[in-house]
Amino acid sequence: MREILQKLLDKEISIQDAEKMLKTSHIEELEDFAKIDTCRHLRTGIPEVIFAENKEDEDLLKIILNCAQNGHVMVTRLSKERYELLKPQISVLSDNKFKIEYNRRARILVIKDHEIGKEGKIGILTAGTSDIPVAEEARITAEEMGCETIVAYDAGVAGMHRVFSPVKKMLEEEVKAIVVVAGMEGALPSVVTGLVDVPVIGVPTSIGYGVGEGGFTALFAMLQSCAPGIAVVNIDNGFGAGVFAAKLAKQTLK
Amino acid sequence: MREILQKLLDKEISIQDAEKMLKTSHIEELEDFAKIDTCRHLRTGIPEVIFAENKEDEDLLKIILNCAQNGHVMVTRLSKERYELLKPQISVLSDNKFKIEYNRRARILVIKDHEIGKEGKIGILTAGTSDIPVAEEARITAEEMGCETIVAYDAGVAGMHRVFSPVKKMLEEEVKAIVVVAGMEGALPSVVTGLVDVPVIGVPTSIGYGVGEGGFTALFAMLQSCAPGIAVVNIDNGFGAGVFAAKLAKQTLK
Amino acid sequence: MREILQKLLDKEISIQDAEKMLKTSHIEELEDFAKIDTCRHLRTGIPEVIFAENKEDEDLLKIILNCAQNGHVMVTRLSKERYELLKPQISVLSDNKFKIEYNRRARILVIKDHEIGKEGKIGILTAGTSDIPVAEEARITAEEMGCETIVAYDAGVAGMHRVFSPVKKMLEEEVKAIVVVAGMEGALPSVVTGLVDVPVIGVPTSIGYGVGEGGFTALFAMLQSCAPGIAVVNIDNGFGAGVFAAKLAKQTLK
Amino acid sequence: MREILQKLLDKEISIQDAEKMLKTSHIEELEDFAKIDTCRHLRTGIPEVIFAENKEDEDLLKIILNCAQNGHVMVTRLSKERYELLKPQISVLSDNKFKIEYNRRARILVIKDHEIGKEGKIGILTAGTSDIPVAEEARITAEEMGCETIVAYDAGVAGMHRVFSPVKKMLEEEVKAIVVVAGMEGALPSVVTGLVDVPVIGVPTSIGYGVGEGGFTALFAMLQSCAPGIAVVNIDNGFGAGVFAAKLAKQTLK
Amino acid sequence: MREILQKLLDKEISIQDAEKMLKTSHIEELEDFAKIDTCRHLRTGIPEVIFAENKEDEDLLKIILNCAQNGHVMVTRLSKERYELLKPQISVLSDNKFKIEYNRRARILVIKDHEIGKEGKIGILTAGTSDIPVAEEARITAEEMGCETIVAYDAGVAGMHRVFSPVKKMLEEEVKAIVVVAGMEGALPSVVTGLVDVPVIGVPTSIGYGVGEGGFTALFAMLQSCAPGIAVVNIDNGFGAGVFAAKLAKQTLK
Amino acid sequence: MREILQKLLDKEISIQDAEKMLKTSHIEELEDFAKIDTCRHLRTGIPEVIFAENKEDEDLLKIILNCAQNGHVMVTRLSKERYELLKPQISVLSDNKFKIEYNRRARILVIKDHEIGKEGKIGILTAGTSDIPVAEEARITAEEMGCETIVAYDAGVAGMHRVFSPVKKMLEEEVKAIVVVAGMEGALPSVVTGLVDVPVIGVPTSIGYGVGEGGFTALFAMLQSCAPGIAVVNIDNGFGAGVFAAKLAKQTLK
Amino acid sequence: MREILQKLLDKEISIQDAEKMLKTSHIEELEDFAKIDTCRHLRTGIPEVIFAENKEDEDLLKIILNCAQNGHVMVTRLSKERYELLKPQISVLSDNKFKIEYNRRARILVIKDHEIGKEGKIGILTAGTSDIPVAEEARITAEEMGCETIVAYDAGVAGMHRVFSPVKKMLEEEVKAIVVVAGMEGALPSVVTGLVDVPVIGVPTSIGYGVGEGGFTALFAMLQSCAPGIAVVNIDNGFGAGVFAAKLAKQTLK
Amino acid sequence: MREILQKLLDKEISIQDAEKMLKTSHIEELEDFAKIDTCRHLRTGIPEVIFAENKEDEDLLKIILNCAQNGHVMVTRLSKERYELLKPQISVLSDNKFKIEYNRRARILVIKDHEIGKEGKIGILTAGTSDIPVAEEARITAEEMGCETIVAYDAGVAGMHRVFSPVKKMLEEEVKAIVVVAGMEGALPSVVTGLVDVPVIGVPTSIGYGVGEGGFTALFAMLQSCAPGIAVVNIDNGFGAGVFAAKLAKQTLK
Repeated sequence: MREILQKLLDKEISIQDAEKMLKTSHIEELEDFAKIDTCRHLRTGIPEVIFAENKEDEDLLKIILNCAQNGHVMVTRLSKERYELLKPQISVLSDNKFKIEYNRRARILVIKDHEIGKEGKIGILTAGTSDIPVAEEARITAEEMGCETIVAYDAGVAGMHRVFSPVKKMLEEEVKAIVVVAGMEGALPSVVTGLVDVPVIGVPTSIGYGVGEGGFTALFAMLQSCAPGIAVVNIDNGFGAGVFAAKLAKQTLK
Repeated sequence: MREILQKLLDKEISIQDAEKMLKTSHIEELEDFAKIDTCRHLRTGIPEVIFAENKEDEDLLKIILNCAQNGHVMVTRLSKERYELLKPQISVLSDNKFKIEYNRRARILVIKDHEIGKEGKIGILTAGTSDIPVAEEARITAEEMGCETIVAYDAGVAGMHRVFSPVKKMLEEEVKAIVVVAGMEGALPSVVTGLVDVPVIGVPTSIGYGVGEGGFTALFAMLQSCAPGIAVVNIDNGFGAGVFAAKLAKQTLK
Repeated sequence: MREILQKLLDKEISIQDAEKMLKTSHIEELEDFAKIDTCRHLRTGIPEVIFAENKEDEDLLKIILNCAQNGHVMVTRLSKERYELLKPQISVLSDNKFKIEYNRRARILVIKDHEIGKEGKIGILTAGTSDIPVAEEARITAEEMGCETIVAYDAGVAGMHRVFSPVKKMLEEEVKAIVVVAGMEGALPSVVTGLVDVPVIGVPTSIGYGVGEGGFTALFAMLQSCAPGIAVVNIDNGFGAGVFAAKLAKQTLK
Repeated sequence: MREILQKLLDKEISIQDAEKMLKTSHIEELEDFAKIDTCRHLRTGIPEVIFAENKEDEDLLKIILNCAQNGHVMVTRLSKERYELLKPQISVLSDNKFKIEYNRRARILVIKDHEIGKEGKIGILTAGTSDIPVAEEARITAEEMGCETIVAYDAGVAGMHRVFSPVKKMLEEEVKAIVVVAGMEGALPSVVTGLVDVPVIGVPTSIGYGVGEGGFTALFAMLQSCAPGIAVVNIDNGFGAGVFAAKLAKQTLK
Repeated sequence: MREILQKLLDKEISIQDAEKMLKTSHIEELEDFAKIDTCRHLRTGIPEVIFAENKEDEDLLKIILNCAQNGHVMVTRLSKERYELLKPQISVLSDNKFKIEYNRRARILVIKDHEIGKEGKIGILTAGTSDIPVAEEARITAEEMGCETIVAYDAGVAGMHRVFSPVKKMLEEEVKAIVVVAGMEGALPSVVTGLVDVPVIGVPTSIGYGVGEGGFTALFAMLQSCAPGIAVVNIDNGFGAGVFAAKLAKQTLK
Repeated sequence: MREILQKLLDKEISIQDAEKMLKTSHIEELEDFAKIDTCRHLRTGIPEVIFAENKEDEDLLKIILNCAQNGHVMVTRLSKERYELLKPQISVLSDNKFKIEYNRRARILVIKDHEIGKEGKIGILTAGTSDIPVAEEARITAEEMGCETIVAYDAGVAGMHRVFSPVKKMLEEEVKAIVVVAGMEGALPSVVTGLVDVPVIGVPTSIGYGVGEGGFTALFAMLQSCAPGIAVVNIDNGFGAGVFAAKLAKQTLK
Repeated sequence: MREILQKLLDKEISIQDAEKMLKTSHIEELEDFAKIDTCRHLRTGIPEVIFAENKEDEDLLKIILNCAQNGHVMVTRLSKERYELLKPQISVLSDNKFKIEYNRRARILVIKDHEIGKEGKIGILTAGTSDIPVAEEARITAEEMGCETIVAYDAGVAGMHRVFSPVKKMLEEEVKAIVVVAGMEGALPSVVTGLVDVPVIGVPTSIGYGVGEGGFTALFAMLQSCAPGIAVVNIDNGFGAGVFAAKLAKQTLK
Repeated sequence: MREILQKLLDKEISIQDAEKMLKTSHIEELEDFAKIDTCRHLRTGIPEVIFAENKEDEDLLKIILNCAQNGHVMVTRLSKERYELLKPQISVLSDNKFKIEYNRRARILVIKDHEIGKEGKIGILTAGTSDIPVAEEARITAEEMGCETIVAYDAGVAGMHRVFSPVKKMLEEEVKAIVVVAGMEGALPSVVTGLVDVPVIGVPTSIGYGVGEGGFTALFAMLQSCAPGIAVVNIDNGFGAGVFAAKLAKQTLK
């Protein structure tokens, strides 16, 4: 600020210019905190993210094409049916050096004009095969944010030995955190946390029936775990777990 | 019935006697199903059971003294303070060859005029030290119903090795069922069921806080277990688990 | 272990062999607890079990064909529509001496290459006709695990006399446990437990509407029963009840 | 109204009088619907009712003394401790020919200057001894509203025979309705409704623990009963059940 | 019983006959309480009732045709689509002097071979037009049980004057009870109870959205009403309200 | 009233006329409070409102055509599909000088024979694009009730700077209240209330998943806001927010 | 800003002064949005507000004395016992021309060094006497924010006539909004909204028992009201209702 | 293992010694996964942790004295009253070079015989002063696990500017994660996550009333946050947040 004032005194700039420059610097300061965020923008080096559910087809398409201009966009919760519908209009982007990848299980569409470098590593574990879609959402999210992943799917507590081996491997590979995805009684994250020193991120899934319907039992079991060192995201929120794990892994690179 | 009718024909009994005897035999038949049950009576060879909570002191004392006449009575949910209050009036029974035992942790008072023989064996396991009172309630209930017990307290999933050893011992001792008592995330019964072939009876406890307060997380986790072979009783219901396990063990003796 | 060491000392085996054998014996020991469990495997003499819901068709088929190699597999929660879809590919197994049985009500598919012997007997009772599918799931599960069953469907508390007769018959046939399946207010298990000495396994169903929707009223009523001797499984969990009852019955055969 | 107008025309009354009288008659007409209700007033021949909870001592006393002037007042939810506190000031009423009765179990205080005649009869049944206070609240309420009562306490479904006898007696005495008070799993009203033709009024109580805490299980079980012919009041609402039953019984006298 | 015994003594019947007759009389006695109830049977002078939901088409048809033999059957919760499906097979009954009536709104099918006489009168009121189907279910149920009805639909508290007029009319017609059907905030039964002396039966409906979805708000508001004299049935349970009201009205005829 | 009585005395009217006139004046007085309200009528200068959900097509059409006679009617919760269905029959109104407008997002149909003047101004803000339909329902409702609106959609707390600008603009335009529509964690109304002095009306939406499904998290967060000056309407109740805001704005014009 | 720059150019102030002044003006600008808020500060002309619950005595005292320096402070949720405890230390303020007022029912302490002028008027209504404390909290809050109030306590729907009269009076006095406080079934706000054109602010209270315990029934009934024009605050949140109503009334004065 | 075998072959050890050593090494291997965990042990370089709630005084003391032998123990959820009670017996440890520190707000007792080195830094933020105890629990836990902390208490969303400054400072100090503690509507973690790139750990507190009672609103709001990058621990679980944050910070040091 003092610079601007000095320039004013030195008559290098007019009083109008000074006023304008001061206002701008003020806004820039504000924007240190509240950056332009047009498509649920995450910060430097990471893709724009669009949540497809609850958006109408026409709106969704417009937002995708618009955000793709930034060079890296990720569309989450996009069903295969819907993707097929939008495909023709989106594929025009492929002419412009864009790479278009759709993962059916994760229900994620990625559009990018450059490869994503990867640093830092996390592990992803599921309790059952039904939990795989949520784990895949976490995996792709983390990878698109520049994070390496190791996965091991179907390692439930009903067969304890199936837990030991993949956890051991993840520790050997020095993962910075383990994302544990589980529905039903949600016991796996507790068991894993009892075995490791790295932070565990629990992802409850809505897999279950009767009292377990909707995933609340799994969620509450993870929050209530008697093994300290777990933090939890929303039910079926593979995306959130991926972002959190990637942010965590990035801290270890600084 | 034919006997009675024959006696009538043989004039051994009058028509009034016959009518009375038939009515009585009718009631006896009904009682095959709906036996006299004055103090929440369990069936042959087992104690009368009195639930102390929600009963006024005066009423409770009267019922205890009355039921004690049957030779074996168990009072559950009787706090130490309350027991001390009733002690003087109850201790008169000790003159009449009654043995009076109060277990503070289990909050159970037992009064009996004979020793209880024991056959059949069950195991009782807890996840944490805070779950012990409920486990003790189950233990004493099962023992008073004539069942042997082996206990292992404080075997949580956060330290998996502490689970293996007592479970192994119980299997070696050929328990007929394992009662697993756990609060918090209620994962222990799932883990144990994954390890054994005998039926597992889950007892959720109200130990927990935040989302786990009241014990619903533990209850739902047990009901939702991905390991088949668990059945569950109400939160903190050590008594019910003890009765169920003892009934189960008795079936193996027939 | 000593044997291996002795052999080493006796030079019968090399130090490499000894190391390998010790590691293997270690793993075998571990596997006493944590056996290979590839398809939600239950232990000796019982079928592999596959839960069909939340699995994609392709995956499901692959798992079925794979598990069938063990000689006895059970697929639960498989709707008729889905079964019809998979039928052509599954029926190839019938050429290989496999017997293929599908029960529409129970939504269970059984594939086996040998007959299942039956020992031990349990009773299964339902409160209403709408509870029959869950009861059938329990029945087939128990039978495939080698347990005899007697069933009596539609015995609700609104017509008390309909309860007495089948319960009496089950007691005469010396069942080791009674599975009681009920939706709505879930009162039948309490009433039955008041009548019998064998363990009662309550199975709440999601039959009901308004406050009873989803089956929570029935579940909570069973857990809260004033008649001791009931343990409960998850809502609509006929499979779990069947496994528990069969495990229980097996204990009585030892 | 015509009478008043005629009197005006006949000059028996002035136009001011007529206006005043018409307004009064108007209010009287309104009061057919919305009668003066200063103390939660019930209608003709029944006591004023004051709910003691959530009222401060001073206010409560003032309202009691004020309402007593109407000759018949009932104070509900008044604990013994609180009654003892208010007793000295209330007892002055006893000089004025008022009869003062306090029932500790029902927590009801009745003050009246005349005896209450009784017509119509209802039955009141409880599942356990712990439900008696709520039943007593219903009994006294119904009696103060001019209704005869027959009671049978402690008739739970765990001992089915104890249900038959009192229900039979009530039918023989031609009760117009049966109030069934039950906590825990709340099964008794269903069972009773299956046995009788008269309307059954279910009163859930908050007796229970774990999943039954607060009385919701009992409430929902009654609402969800598979036996048609039950209507239900709020948890622990003996007063409401008494009023409803008395209103019902009065209908039968017209 | 004495008669039978006398006949035996008089040699009018053999001892075998006597035994058989006594057993039969015993059963008849039992049936005073637990009558044969094959199709959710209500007692004398009332139709058999079949709940169509959760029954398979084939089973449903069989039960209907079977129960129709008793001369009067009511099928509830039968959607128009389903009725159309069953119509051809059911219509054969019309040849046998059976009258077949289907009410689309109430979703009730009535089959009877005689007209139902009507005595006793009840009122039925709804808060909104959306509540009419539930009210119609109550109306037809009550009428088939031999009860006269007066209805007034669409009388919500948002327009208080619309409440006064129909309530007044019902009182003039001396209804014995008023069934008040309301969704949303469920305030109408409270308001009506504040206006009348007859018992009010509240029927919450599942009409509502947001916090009111499923009808719990309406249910709880009715149970919690500050106007005493309401009893409540399950959400959308027009059938239960109709049965209760009809039973109530019958009491007034004795 | 005195006027009528005077006329009677003056013999200008007969006693019959007087009686009739007095009764009428009485009703008129009553109608000051309880006005004729045939189609969920709002008061002077505002449209009749019809809630389309839970009404059958035929009934709905009849009510629309009937209410349209009043010159201004609004049909809410009318899906596009349903509107297309009713369109042919409704369009006959357009011949009679009626203007017919359907807003797909808001799901509102407006029929009117005159333009609505606008006074008073309110702001409407949404947290995300998915909340727009509810905001549009509020906007059209407020406008049809004669209120000006300024809208700013998609201003979530994840990008704080996007909140500041539209709020500032609304304050500059001197809105009398701000309607803030938000799903998910429902934080936006708290943040806005912390920034402004005008009343904030929170509208939670059902946008969310996992723990946020149904909108309860957003609702409870708004009710529990630590910033005082918010009042809240039901989940997705844009209509209610619009009515409340318009009523509020009208107060400022008096 | 231009003024400061001009002064700098005119050498009236130094560059350091200018920098400091600009920073201050910047903060002032920021404070248009995010004002200094040390004690849950409300904006111009209104008191600082301190929520006493969950604060330790020592901290609370310090905050009170500190905030009092602003000339007008309000402490909410301060029990009488606690006030008595703090009184000695607070009363020193009375020497400094501060007026100290404590309202026991509202549990509010007000400290101010000037009288609060009053403009704009709101009505406050309660359903029962038990709701008065919450209404008083609303009243004092509104008055301290410079708003006139008219109150009418104890106007429940069980006595409809008691509602009409105070509502009429409030309308005649031209209140800008009516705050309606109600527990139990929460029906009063719906009824009042059906009668008036001004905005209604519903305040549910925790008065109730059984299903109504905690106030959720009242809250949901108000949110779900079929009468449009209600907005609602948190359970027992008289303070929030008072702030909202006062903000609303202020809008009408501009 | 090979070493031991070699020693055996070299006759340096006996076969008994070898067996014993192998078993020990086996256990050590097992302990890689399931370490000895007598006092809810966390791994290398971190204190033993004892949860004081639900443990009886005598047991608690014994466990504390026992665990203290490991040189570093932390007792959580220990109220001041209880600490005072245990103080005399614990203070004997101070003679043995143990340092004993009790933090009243955090309710944590730390006993250690050496200073804890600190590496890695985390920030801790609270929304209100009432959230401080939970934040202090997190702070002490993290510090005892060897982590530096920066705290900023009382930064709620109702005064947005109070959020900016401490968050900026934390970023400048390069914290590896920010623990955000908030009750009420739980909006602060969303707002902070929108401002920063480091992982945010949300800790809901039970501060709140009405719909916010118990902390579920805050918990669900954090889980449902529209700003990705938050993970959450149980309500009031400052300890869990501290452990998670410290584990996370340790990852960044490797």
